[in-house]
Amino acid sequence: MSVPVTTLIDDPIARVLGELHERLRHDYRGEVSASIPTLANADHKLFGLAVCSPDGFVSEAGDVDVEFSVQSISKAFTYALALSDRGREAVHEHVGAEPSGEAFSAISLEEETGRPDNPMINAGALVTCALVGGEDAREKFARIRSLMEAAAGRTLGFDETVYEEEQAASDRNRALAHFMRSAGSLTDEVDPTMEVYLRQCSVLVTTRDLAIMGATLARGGINPVTGDRVFSGEVARHVLTVMATCGMYDYSGEWLLTVGTPAKSGVSGGLITASPGQFGMGLFSPKLDARGNSVRGVAASQDLAERFQLHALTLPGGNLPVVRESEERWPEFGAGVVAIQGDLVFASMRGVLAAMEDVLDSTDRVLVLDLDRVTRVHAVGEKILQGAIDRLHDLEHDVVIVDGARRGIVTGAVEVETLDAARDWLSER
Amino acid sequence: MSVPVTTLIDDPIARVLGELHERLRHDYRGEVSASIPTLANADHKLFGLAVCSPDGFVSEAGDVDVEFSVQSISKAFTYALALSDRGREAVHEHVGAEPSGEAFSAISLEEETGRPDNPMINAGALVTCALVGGEDAREKFARIRSLMEAAAGRTLGFDETVYEEEQAASDRNRALAHFMRSAGSLTDEVDPTMEVYLRQCSVLVTTRDLAIMGATLARGGINPVTGDRVFSGEVARHVLTVMATCGMYDYSGEWLLTVGTPAKSGVSGGLITASPGQFGMGLFSPKLDARGNSVRGVAASQDLAERFQLHALTLPGGNLPVVRESEERWPEFGAGVVAIQGDLVFASMRGVLAAMEDVLDSTDRVLVLDLDRVTRVHAVGEKILQGAIDRLHDLEHDVVIVDGARRGIVTGAVEVETLDAARDWLSER
Amino acid sequence: MSVPVTTLIDDPIARVLGELHERLRHDYRGEVSASIPTLANADHKLFGLAVCSPDGFVSEAGDVDVEFSVQSISKAFTYALALSDRGREAVHEHVGAEPSGEAFSAISLEEETGRPDNPMINAGALVTCALVGGEDAREKFARIRSLMEAAAGRTLGFDETVYEEEQAASDRNRALAHFMRSAGSLTDEVDPTMEVYLRQCSVLVTTRDLAIMGATLARGGINPVTGDRVFSGEVARHVLTVMATCGMYDYSGEWLLTVGTPAKSGVSGGLITASPGQFGMGLFSPKLDARGNSVRGVAASQDLAERFQLHALTLPGGNLPVVRESEERWPEFGAGVVAIQGDLVFASMRGVLAAMEDVLDSTDRVLVLDLDRVTRVHAVGEKILQGAIDRLHDLEHDVVIVDGARRGIVTGAVEVETLDAARDWLSER
Amino acid sequence: MSVPVTTLIDDPIARVLGELHERLRHDYRGEVSASIPTLANADHKLFGLAVCSPDGFVSEAGDVDVEFSVQSISKAFTYALALSDRGREAVHEHVGAEPSGEAFSAISLEEETGRPDNPMINAGALVTCALVGGEDAREKFARIRSLMEAAAGRTLGFDETVYEEEQAASDRNRALAHFMRSAGSLTDEVDPTMEVYLRQCSVLVTTRDLAIMGATLARGGINPVTGDRVFSGEVARHVLTVMATCGMYDYSGEWLLTVGTPAKSGVSGGLITASPGQFGMGLFSPKLDARGNSVRGVAASQDLAERFQLHALTLPGGNLPVVRESEERWPEFGAGVVAIQGDLVFASMRGVLAAMEDVLDSTDRVLVLDLDRVTRVHAVGEKILQGAIDRLHDLEHDVVIVDGARRGIVTGAVEVETLDAARDWLSER
Repeated sequence: MSVPVTTLIDDPIARVLGELHERLRHDYRGEVSASIPTLANADHKLFGLAVCSPDGFVSEAGDVDVEFSVQSISKAFTYALALSDRGREAVHEHVGAEPSGEAFSAISLEEETGRPDNPMINAGALVTCALVGGEDAREKFARIRSLMEAAAGRTLGFDETVYEEEQAASDRNRALAHFMRSAGSLTDEVDPTMEVYLRQCSVLVTTRDLAIMGATLARGGINPVTGDRVFSGEVARHVLTVMATCGMYDYSGEWLLTVGTPAKSGVSGGLITASPGQFGMGLFSPKLDARGNSVRGVAASQDLAERFQLHALTLPGGNLPVVRESEERWPEFGAGVVAIQGDLVFASMRGVLAAMEDVLDSTDRVLVLDLDRVTRVHAVGEKILQGAIDRLHDLEHDVVIVDGARRGIVTGAVEVETLDAARDWLSER
Repeated sequence: MSVPVTTLIDDPIARVLGELHERLRHDYRGEVSASIPTLANADHKLFGLAVCSPDGFVSEAGDVDVEFSVQSISKAFTYALALSDRGREAVHEHVGAEPSGEAFSAISLEEETGRPDNPMINAGALVTCALVGGEDAREKFARIRSLMEAAAGRTLGFDETVYEEEQAASDRNRALAHFMRSAGSLTDEVDPTMEVYLRQCSVLVTTRDLAIMGATLARGGINPVTGDRVFSGEVARHVLTVMATCGMYDYSGEWLLTVGTPAKSGVSGGLITASPGQFGMGLFSPKLDARGNSVRGVAASQDLAERFQLHALTLPGGNLPVVRESEERWPEFGAGVVAIQGDLVFASMRGVLAAMEDVLDSTDRVLVLDLDRVTRVHAVGEKILQGAIDRLHDLEHDVVIVDGARRGIVTGAVEVETLDAARDWLSER
Repeated sequence: MSVPVTTLIDDPIARVLGELHERLRHDYRGEVSASIPTLANADHKLFGLAVCSPDGFVSEAGDVDVEFSVQSISKAFTYALALSDRGREAVHEHVGAEPSGEAFSAISLEEETGRPDNPMINAGALVTCALVGGEDAREKFARIRSLMEAAAGRTLGFDETVYEEEQAASDRNRALAHFMRSAGSLTDEVDPTMEVYLRQCSVLVTTRDLAIMGATLARGGINPVTGDRVFSGEVARHVLTVMATCGMYDYSGEWLLTVGTPAKSGVSGGLITASPGQFGMGLFSPKLDARGNSVRGVAASQDLAERFQLHALTLPGGNLPVVRESEERWPEFGAGVVAIQGDLVFASMRGVLAAMEDVLDSTDRVLVLDLDRVTRVHAVGEKILQGAIDRLHDLEHDVVIVDGARRGIVTGAVEVETLDAARDWLSER
Repeated sequence: MSVPVTTLIDDPIARVLGELHERLRHDYRGEVSASIPTLANADHKLFGLAVCSPDGFVSEAGDVDVEFSVQSISKAFTYALALSDRGREAVHEHVGAEPSGEAFSAISLEEETGRPDNPMINAGALVTCALVGGEDAREKFARIRSLMEAAAGRTLGFDETVYEEEQAASDRNRALAHFMRSAGSLTDEVDPTMEVYLRQCSVLVTTRDLAIMGATLARGGINPVTGDRVFSGEVARHVLTVMATCGMYDYSGEWLLTVGTPAKSGVSGGLITASPGQFGMGLFSPKLDARGNSVRGVAASQDLAERFQLHALTLPGGNLPVVRESEERWPEFGAGVVAIQGDLVFASMRGVLAAMEDVLDSTDRVLVLDLDRVTRVHAVGEKILQGAIDRLHDLEHDVVIVDGARRGIVTGAVEVETLDAARDWLSER
């Protein structure tokens, strides 16, 4: 009998995170934030890394259980809530979606509209705080906190001291708020808006929380651990989009080039990053670079991105042709088979339909469409495929769908689980 | 015999493009560019739409064969060539990657470095023109033109009149060039750099060309029609990244929110957009909005994006679990099977390895790993998987890979095409 | 007996003002400020013009007795008080003296120091409000009001409604205040600073008041009507200097070119301008141009400036040589006479001393220095002259000063009122 | 016999300059300009100071004969020539008059007009170079050089090496020129404009030249040494005005506060300053401060300004009432005397006319107006006085003017040289 393989699954992700932790924990570059005493006194040696898979497995290394104030990372979730409450158009009447190429506390507003550039800078987050539904500051904040808790999958603490310190150091943000009120982009009162804004920053999270919150975004709004839907897939997409271009302040462009995934950093040293369908990641290390991003967090992200090609625009290798098989299979039943594999995406549908026509041209009237190896169905694929099936029905062709998972990808056709079952169905009718 | 299905494949993409063309051709908003006489006299009624699939099928509608000067869309390809010639780091020593939130002709340079913000604005493109390899302006331009021709898959014309008009109206760009020379970010002489820059703008393309050039980016640098590699996958990713945040000038953020794919527009009314692995698209309509983007081009893109959810950060539906099957299948051979499907991505590898361990725990020593339904292999998946296979060999386990396409996803293991063949191999050894 | 000359002195200044009033009152260009209801509802037909001479005569035309809130014109006097309380260096640690070339509400602070550009824009005036001495907002404002009253020579009203409206519309200024607190240039609390700032704006003045307040600046800090010193000559000079470059917002440069005197405008339509030693002027007309300056106020000022060459840098004509006479007059007493006239200025002293030496070379030992026609003595003239007199005493020369006004321009010399008296003195000693 | 007084007139101005030279020559702060080799290699120990009085006496200390390139100081004279050639309005269609609060090489243009801020920054000077009359660059430059020579009173050299070095380092200015051509504010070709601009900078001057050139401005356009009129008084006033607010770059405001006279500095370390009617000054010391102004030049100017209160807005002391005497003097002739002294300025005319009326009320019909002690006649004084004299003639009053200098201040009246002569005239008619 062979050696046990326990070391095999010794979670390869966790192992990589562990290696990174070991290597980077000696990187003492940067400075902790001096913005408030609690941050200025943070233990700069802390360093946590966690990854959450779309199915909810968390891999981790370092100080993943240490709590810290979420700070600006909350902006992504407050924006999510404002979008959920008001819709994209109403939200973006008051805040832009353009990267500013400026620092987090930039004071510039759009010339004609008076809108702050985007929801990831302070000015924009003040606006989204005001747009969140709720009678008053208390209720607005309670709803933001609830949404963050749903995304993290647990009850989150609140740091009253941080909140008070933030209030005492809030002049620049108050300036932004008054400035936007004078420009008309902030319609709420300044004081309650500041309260919501500063409270959302004072919620306590761990590195593990951030990983799961990121995975919630990566899963299109569903927390992969609890299975709860926290916000819609559309909201998740909007949030990730704005994080992609604006989440790392004036480092956003270079981040996207070297890491390539939507991300958001906070002044306490937290960093969240997520890739749709792939992963959520949380990083935490208090020392910041000149742009206000966690030094080790950025370094670890860049290492992981390069090592594993996590870039959201990377073209994966090993691609298979979308049409796996296309043949007149069972002439006795006047039937042909078209087998599809991989992703049903926009542009590939032309090839799929061409294959379907070829098979039908050489058979009598039955199309067996094998979707068993279709792993992802983009909306457009579904739509175009459904249109073709409907058309075939109009032309009095029969269609049999093979899908072991019975996903109901198209409607109005016989669905069976295997090719053998399809043959049985053909022989029996 | 049934009715012929010709209308079925009546290319659904082309049909949608045709509908859009019909609807939007009455949209007369915007103004043609007045920057040079040729553009000022352009026929504003022209409107072309084309989509190229990753396997090289082109669907189209409208005036897809009309030639127009490529203008700023060339910036994406000159950047690609500079990256190919010099590498990312050397290029970005001289030009940033940050969205500027400013107009195409913005004159701002980075305070400390003197770099222009990014390669998609005029200032940045002047820098990339200078960085392209070549003895002189003639050679540099010849190489840029060749690369565009390789991406389009045909010989492209050159509009001498446009070039001369551009020279006559080049004061602002000359100002940028001198400005950058004084700041040290442009190291070449101004005159030859202007020549390369203005010549690249004067190359003639059609809407169909743009679709294929886009598909070349979407295919990671391989022209899907000719099959030629034009630039590396890494270069394609860099170009798409910078297009994503900077390609639509100060509309980039809203474009990304409402369309969600990397894109680049030109002052002649051309627009190119691409999604990795999904499609390349070309659009052409001379009237521009206030930000200098084609009015109909933007409208058509937004319609298509919404209708087909083309957004690059959209989470597709119909996802299947990555581990399709995990069982002790052939106890007689001390073997178990783990069947994987879909994409091998970063975070999902933990689940894959866990399944592998589970199976090996309950079998003697042989793992049959069925990769036949794996449609895309991300680098990380390959890496982690290979690491696990190597580990199993160290532990003296045998591994049999099943892959009908014999893609060689991992090395050092027996590879067969079917599960039956795997069983045969087990029985024979 | 001849016709009475009453019409002669029919105050030529008043007549010109009357003509201007008649001509410009039909100029309806511009808009009243919409910043607060009281201003929005102002009677735009109101138009007042007043000039106060350095000796306290007021010439006027139009609605010179109508009260309006002083608004930004108060900034000049609050700056004067801050200078009086703290000195120039301490004040300018917190606020610059550079024209910003920007609008009144510009939000830009100096990059390194965080100082607002100058005390004539809102941000700078908030700083000077904070720098004014006083225990609290009440006392600070009481002192500012007192200083304005001393400059106007009467008790000034306060518009409580305006103050409340300003408070309700103070978001942008509150933004500036918080912004500067965060930058460290404003060290007081925001609320009391805002109170002082908004109260100083709500003091009620008339056009006549402005003329007298201007004359107080023109007279080096002495109210020419009451004779009271309101602030020092040095403070007056600082205030006029900053008014000269910054008082008319982003129109300051063109104002200086076309009018050429220090000035300050307010959003209620008031305008004050002053020329050292020449005049103070008040103008009032509520409709403002795009830069926020009173349309008729600017037009009237430009007309007067051109007609009467009021520009502060105009070289006056009719200049007489500074040395009127230089001769050996009374050889019997070994005495010579040097008669000086006009202004004793820096560069002309060389000629004066040369004349003194010439006379002494040809006489024995007595210099009679006739200063009776010296009308203005610049500090440098006094200093250099005193130095020469002292030197003559060291050399045992006698000096007799002739000055009908017995001004005591130099000390240590015999002073008589006439040349005859000088001769008497010579003959008697 | 007393000690000779030679040391008395030992030019007090020169003595002060000598003391300053001695004290400041050990001030080694700052850096010589590195913009071109010639400047980088300048002897930083050089230090010259010169003052020219309005009557053409030059006092000096240090290296006043050393030649250096005039650099940006030429901007004041090119502006003067453009004004002379085109008039104020035509010039300022293309260049503003607003202080920019920015560095000399600022690239900002006015948003709506595309004009550079003012003629004292590089961009603005390029425009004035283009506006100078002349067929081509050669002629334009020749005319600028001639004007500078007329202002200096001698033939000026030209440094060909400096010109060539400037050409080689002209990228930023070329950028400005192309930028302005694209904005429409520069209408000439770039190359000839650059040639004129760079040539004007390469003219050689000495510190003494600068003092005389400054005195030419201070004398309203008349070179006080040669007596030649170089430009009009109006042009001199415009130039001084723009120098006052824009001549010292982003130090202009503080310069005006601490020195208070119009000035212009150059990158070679030259500095020119002038006060209307008072003096012209030249300073030269190559080491520059962070704003590009000569360190010792600024320090010396501040010392002199404080010591001698040279500030243009200083109110001089020793003022005498404008009406010296007003009495019924010769009742036998039905005549009264009004004696005026000092300056006839705008606001003081009311008092003068009131005195005239008082005297005429108590006499029969003759007014003797003694102007002998009037030292300066402002345009407005002359105008108002003439109006009153005309009115008296209409009323059939006789007027006798007493003016020893027979300046002809008013017309249409008998003019005599002394009061005795007036009495004789009265008795004889």
